[in-house]
Amino acid sequence: MKPQAGDADIARVREKIEALGFHAHVIPGEQRTAIGITGNSGPIDPAEFEDLPGVAEAIRVSKPYKLVSRETKPDNTVVAVNGVRVGAGKPVFCGGPCAVESREQILESARAVKAAGGQLLRGGAYKPRTSPYSFQGLGEAGLRHLADAREETGLGIVTEAVDVETFDLVERYADCVQIGARNMQNFSLLRRAGRSRKPVLLKRGMSSTLEEFLMAAEYILAEGNYNVILCERGVRTFADHTRNTLDLSVVPAVQSLSHLPIIVDPSHGTGKRDKVLPLSLAAVAVGASGLIVEVHPQPDHALSDGYQSLDPAQFAELTAACRAVAEVLAEKRFSARELH
Amino acid sequence: MKPQAGDADIARVREKIEALGFHAHVIPGEQRTAIGITGNSGPIDPAEFEDLPGVAEAIRVSKPYKLVSRETKPDNTVVAVNGVRVGAGKPVFCGGPCAVESREQILESARAVKAAGGQLLRGGAYKPRTSPYSFQGLGEAGLRHLADAREETGLGIVTEAVDVETFDLVERYADCVQIGARNMQNFSLLRRAGRSRKPVLLKRGMSSTLEEFLMAAEYILAEGNYNVILCERGVRTFADHTRNTLDLSVVPAVQSLSHLPIIVDPSHGTGKRDKVLPLSLAAVAVGASGLIVEVHPQPDHALSDGYQSLDPAQFAELTAACRAVAEVLAEKRFSARELH
Amino acid sequence: MKPQAGDADIARVREKIEALGFHAHVIPGEQRTAIGITGNSGPIDPAEFEDLPGVAEAIRVSKPYKLVSRETKPDNTVVAVNGVRVGAGKPVFCGGPCAVESREQILESARAVKAAGGQLLRGGAYKPRTSPYSFQGLGEAGLRHLADAREETGLGIVTEAVDVETFDLVERYADCVQIGARNMQNFSLLRRAGRSRKPVLLKRGMSSTLEEFLMAAEYILAEGNYNVILCERGVRTFADHTRNTLDLSVVPAVQSLSHLPIIVDPSHGTGKRDKVLPLSLAAVAVGASGLIVEVHPQPDHALSDGYQSLDPAQFAELTAACRAVAEVLAEKRFSARELH
Amino acid sequence: MKPQAGDADIARVREKIEALGFHAHVIPGEQRTAIGITGNSGPIDPAEFEDLPGVAEAIRVSKPYKLVSRETKPDNTVVAVNGVRVGAGKPVFCGGPCAVESREQILESARAVKAAGGQLLRGGAYKPRTSPYSFQGLGEAGLRHLADAREETGLGIVTEAVDVETFDLVERYADCVQIGARNMQNFSLLRRAGRSRKPVLLKRGMSSTLEEFLMAAEYILAEGNYNVILCERGVRTFADHTRNTLDLSVVPAVQSLSHLPIIVDPSHGTGKRDKVLPLSLAAVAVGASGLIVEVHPQPDHALSDGYQSLDPAQFAELTAACRAVAEVLAEKRFSARELH
Repeated sequence: MKPQAGDADIARVREKIEALGFHAHVIPGEQRTAIGITGNSGPIDPAEFEDLPGVAEAIRVSKPYKLVSRETKPDNTVVAVNGVRVGAGKPVFCGGPCAVESREQILESARAVKAAGGQLLRGGAYKPRTSPYSFQGLGEAGLRHLADAREETGLGIVTEAVDVETFDLVERYADCVQIGARNMQNFSLLRRAGRSRKPVLLKRGMSSTLEEFLMAAEYILAEGNYNVILCERGVRTFADHTRNTLDLSVVPAVQSLSHLPIIVDPSHGTGKRDKVLPLSLAAVAVGASGLIVEVHPQPDHALSDGYQSLDPAQFAELTAACRAVAEVLAEKRFSARELH
Repeated sequence: MKPQAGDADIARVREKIEALGFHAHVIPGEQRTAIGITGNSGPIDPAEFEDLPGVAEAIRVSKPYKLVSRETKPDNTVVAVNGVRVGAGKPVFCGGPCAVESREQILESARAVKAAGGQLLRGGAYKPRTSPYSFQGLGEAGLRHLADAREETGLGIVTEAVDVETFDLVERYADCVQIGARNMQNFSLLRRAGRSRKPVLLKRGMSSTLEEFLMAAEYILAEGNYNVILCERGVRTFADHTRNTLDLSVVPAVQSLSHLPIIVDPSHGTGKRDKVLPLSLAAVAVGASGLIVEVHPQPDHALSDGYQSLDPAQFAELTAACRAVAEVLAEKRFSARELH
Repeated sequence: MKPQAGDADIARVREKIEALGFHAHVIPGEQRTAIGITGNSGPIDPAEFEDLPGVAEAIRVSKPYKLVSRETKPDNTVVAVNGVRVGAGKPVFCGGPCAVESREQILESARAVKAAGGQLLRGGAYKPRTSPYSFQGLGEAGLRHLADAREETGLGIVTEAVDVETFDLVERYADCVQIGARNMQNFSLLRRAGRSRKPVLLKRGMSSTLEEFLMAAEYILAEGNYNVILCERGVRTFADHTRNTLDLSVVPAVQSLSHLPIIVDPSHGTGKRDKVLPLSLAAVAVGASGLIVEVHPQPDHALSDGYQSLDPAQFAELTAACRAVAEVLAEKRFSARELH
Repeated sequence: MKPQAGDADIARVREKIEALGFHAHVIPGEQRTAIGITGNSGPIDPAEFEDLPGVAEAIRVSKPYKLVSRETKPDNTVVAVNGVRVGAGKPVFCGGPCAVESREQILESARAVKAAGGQLLRGGAYKPRTSPYSFQGLGEAGLRHLADAREETGLGIVTEAVDVETFDLVERYADCVQIGARNMQNFSLLRRAGRSRKPVLLKRGMSSTLEEFLMAAEYILAEGNYNVILCERGVRTFADHTRNTLDLSVVPAVQSLSHLPIIVDPSHGTGKRDKVLPLSLAAVAVGASGLIVEVHPQPDHALSDGYQSLDPAQFAELTAACRAVAEVLAEKRFSARELH
C-alpha cells in the first residue's frame, strides 16, 4: 500500500481478496502496510488490485515463501519485545542462563544482564533435553521466577515453548516465545505460535537450509502472527573444534530475501566460552539485529551449558565491544544491510 | 532374568526396585525378560538384586541410554505389527504411497503391495510439509481409508502421527505409529508415543547422531512402550546426487548397541526411483530387519514424492530380489547380525 | 563405432577429428569401440561423422565430463589388472595391509589374501599421512617386497602413488596405481596417471561430489589412459559412529552416468573392523564391481589402521559371503546394474 | 629462549639437540626465539635443556602438531610479504582477480587494488580447475605479468603453486606462494613449500578439521619454513545459500592453538559478490589478520569466478569499512585475540 493509504483502503483490498476466496494478511510496517495473499492455487492478475485506491503495486511473489518475503514487504520488520525494538538498527542484547534453576539464580542473572547493558532476559523453564533422565526445567515455577525478574529489572523475557500443551502457559508469562532448533519443523507448534499475540523467536534447525528456515517462519506468519525474529545458532557439520558451525553468511542472506530481523546465538553456535566474544563481534559486524547469549552468575555451577556461558563481567565486555562496532558501522553508513 | 523365571520372580524384583524409590521397566523378550531400572541418581549395588530368585545377573549400564541398550537386554527385540514380526530374522516389507490421496488410491495401493509380497501398508493421513501451503493430508478420512485397506487386504497399517493433538486418532486406526524424522527430537510427541500400546516406528533425524537416535528411542521406552522399531532414512550431507545420504553403517551400529530392530527407508534415503532397488538390496545385505518403500499405483500422478515412488511391478521385483539375498545369507549363516 | 567396424574405419574417423584440429580418444570396449572428441570449443555437427563407414552414431555429450560418460561409450568398461577383470560381472576382491611394513609381513599377507579367495593384493609403499612425523612407508623397498609377493602368489599389485616424483617408480612395480582420496583433485598427479599405461584406481575425495569425482577421472582419460577404476571410500559428515560415512548410493549413480567400473573400500569407509563385513555385503548387493579391504596377518600389531583391518579368517568369510550374494543376484538376473 | 639470549646460546641449544640425534628448528620471533625439537620418538627430559644459558623454559608439547603450536612459541608470528607484515595487528588486504588473464587485466587490477587501499595483489597463473577442459592459467607468462604489476605498483604478489614441477617458477616470481584448498594434504607439495625461502599462504581444505589444517602447516614448518599464513576459505556443508560455509570460528580457534597468523577469503568462502562485504567485516571483527578478496576491473567479463568478484569501488568500500572496525576494536583494546 502507499504510505498515505488509510484504513478504508486497506479494508477494501482485504475484502476484495476475501471475495475471491483467498486469505488476506495485513502486515503493518514502519512506513507502509503490506497485504499478503495466500490460498490461491494459481497466479492472480496484478491488475485486479492495482487500480484500487491506496495500492502502490501488486507483486507476484516468485518464492515458495510469500509472507516472509521481501518481495511482499520491502521494508524491514521491527519487532517490539517489551518495548525493545529488534530490527530497528541498533543491536539488541539478550542474556541469561540456559535454564531457570531457582528464583535467586534468575534474579541474580537478570540484575547482572541489566547491569552489563542487556535489554532482554533469556532463561528456559521448559528445556528440550537429549536424555529423558536430564533436568527438564522448573516448568511454571520457572516462568513465575522469570516474571519476578522482569518486575524487578524491567527486562523483557524470552523463554522457550517446547510443545503445544504448555504453550498457553509460556505465552502468558513471556514477552517473546522461543521456538528451539529441534522444533523448527514442528509444524503444529509453529501454527500455535502463529496464533499467539506474542512475538516469536524462531531458531534455525541444526541442518536447516535457508529455504526451510524461511518456510518455517512462513508457517507462523500464515496464521497471522507477523512478529517473528529469526535466529542463527550454528549448524551441524564435520567440524569438531566448535559444538556447531556458526553460519554467519545466513544473516545477510536472510536480510536480502526477507523483511524479518535476524539475530545470532554465539553460545550454542560455538559451544565454547572463549569463542563467544569474537563470534559476537563478527555477528554484529555482519549485520545481525542482536545477540542472544548464555550468561550465568557462576558459569561453573550451572546445571546445563556452563562451559559455554559467560560470567557477568565477560557479558559487559561483550555488549560494550559489540556496541562500539555497531556504532562505527552506523556512523560511516557501513551497515552491511545497506551496502549489499 | 533367567529363562525359567516366573511371574512371581519378576514381581519380586519389580517390588524391590520400587521400594527403593526407582522405576522398574519389565521388557519381555522371546527367551528371557529384562528389567530395566531408571530414576536412580547414582550407582546401585548389583548384589542387591543378584540374590533374588530368578535373577540371572545385574548389569550396570554404562551408556547414556539405558532401556534401549543391549547391555540391559541382550536378546533381540521382536516387534509384532498386526501379527508381522519385525526383527525376527526374515526381512519385512512395508510399502505404500507417501500420502493417502483417496479411498480408491489407497485400496489400489494396498492390493498392489499385497500382490507384490508386502506385509505392511504405509501411507500418511497427516503429512508434515515444508510449506504451509502444500497438501497436508486427508486427516481422519485418510485414516478411515487405511482401515478399509487393512480390512480388505489384511495388511497392517503404518502411519504417521505429527503431533500430540492428533495422536489419539492415529493410534486408534494404526497398527504401528510412525514418528517422522523432523519430529525425532519432539520430546512431547515421543513421550506420548511412549504411553501408547501400539508399536512405534521411529525415523532417524536428518542430522541425528547414533547416540541422539538411541536417546530418542529411550524417551519412548522410558514411558513404558518397549515396541519400538528404528528406521534409517538418510542423513543430510553435502552430496547432491541423492536427496539424502543413506547411512547403512548405522544398521550394524544400532544392532551392536541396542536390542531394538532397525529397518531402512530407501525411498527417502535416496529420493530417486532408480536408486531404490539397489539400496534396498544393500539394506537387506547389511542386515536390516525390513524396508519401508514408497509404492504408488501411478507414481507419475502422485500428489507428493512421485519421483521416488516405485510402481507395483518394481516393488514386486524388489521384494523378490531382497528375499533372495536374505535367504542366501540366512542359509549360509552369513547374517551380518551374527557375524559382526 | 559399429561392432563390425575395422581398424581402417577407426583410423579414418580419427584422422577426420584431428584434421579439424581436435583430439581423438579411441576407447576400445568389449563389443564396440567408442571415439571421444575433446578440444572443441563449441558444438560439432554430428552429420560430419555419421556418413563415415563404420560409424554407428555421433552423440553430442551433454555433461561436463565427456570421455567417462556413458553417452560417449554405452558399454561397461572392463579393466584388466594382472589378468583380473574388474567390471566384468563377478565382484573382484583386493586385500592386504594398509602399509607394507616388511618383506615377511607382505608375503604373509599375500598368502593369506590368496588363501581367502582374494585376487589382488593391496599395500602402501608410500603413505600419505596427516602428520609429518608418522611412518611414511618403506618406499622402493616396499615396492620390491610387493613384487616378491606377486611373484610368489600370482596376485596383482595395487599400490598408491602419492606424487609425480615417485610415480615412475610405483608404475614400474604396480599392476594398478592407486590415487588416494586426498589427491583426487591433485590435477598434476591425475595427468601423470593419464599418461601411464597401467590401470588406475581413483578414490573419491572426502567431500567430493559425484560430478567432481567423474571430472577427476576425466583428467586421466583426457590424457589417454582409459583404464580407470573408481572407488567409493566414505565421505566426511557429522556422523561419528563410523570414521567416514560410506555412501553406497554413489555406486548405482556412477553406473548410470559412466561406463567405468566402481568398487568399494569398506575399511576406510567405516574405520571399524566389525562394520567391514556387513558393509561389504551391502556393497556387493548394491552392485559394486569389487572390494578393496584392509587385511593384516596380525591386525593388532599393524603400524597403521589396525583397528579397521580384518584378520585372514575374517577376510575368507567376507569373500565367501559376498560371492554368495553376488551369485544369487546374478542367477536371478537381479543385478542392480541391469535392473535400475 | 630468553629475550636476551644471544646467537651463541641458540647455537649451543641447537648443537645439543643435534647431538642427541634430533632435529632443531630455530623459529625467530619478534621478542624471543623458540627452538622446536622434532625427530624424537619418545619424551625428552626438559631438565636436559633448562640449565643451558639463555633457555627460558623447556616445554613438552602435548599436541600432535609441534612447531605450529603456541606451546612451542607463545608469541604471535608475523610474516612479512614484500614488506607487508601479516599478523602484526592491523588487517592486511590482498585483492586481485581469480586468474591472470592478460598483462593489461592484471595491471589494471593492480592499480585498482592499490588505489582501493590494498597492500598485496593476488592472481593465479596456474589454476586448479575441476574440468581438464577449463582455462588452466597463463603459466609463466602470467607470472611475468604479475611481476610487471609489482614493479609498477609496489604491491607484493601472492600466487598459487599447484604442483612441485612448477613450484620453482612460481617461487621465483611470487612474494608469497599460495597452496590451494585442494592441495592442503598434498604432502609432497607441502614439503616443497617447506624448503622454500618464500612465505607460504596455506588454505584450509574443503572438509579439513582444525587439527588436519594445523598438521598440514606442520609439514611446511618441519622442513624449515616458518613463514606460514593460514587462510579460512569456507568448508563444504549441506547449506546451499552460499558456495561454501565460511567457518569464522576457526580464526580464534587457530589463534589459541597456534602462533601462526590466519586470514580469511570471503570470496570463495561465500561465492556470492553481495555476501563478500558483510563477511569481510565479520572476519575482521572476529580477529583475522587480513583478507584475500577477488577483485576484477570488470567482474562480469572475468574468465572465472566473476560472480564472486568485487569491482574496484566495492573493494575500496570494503577496505575502508574493515579498517574502521579494526581501529575501533584496537582503540578500545577489544581485539578478540587479546580478549579470549
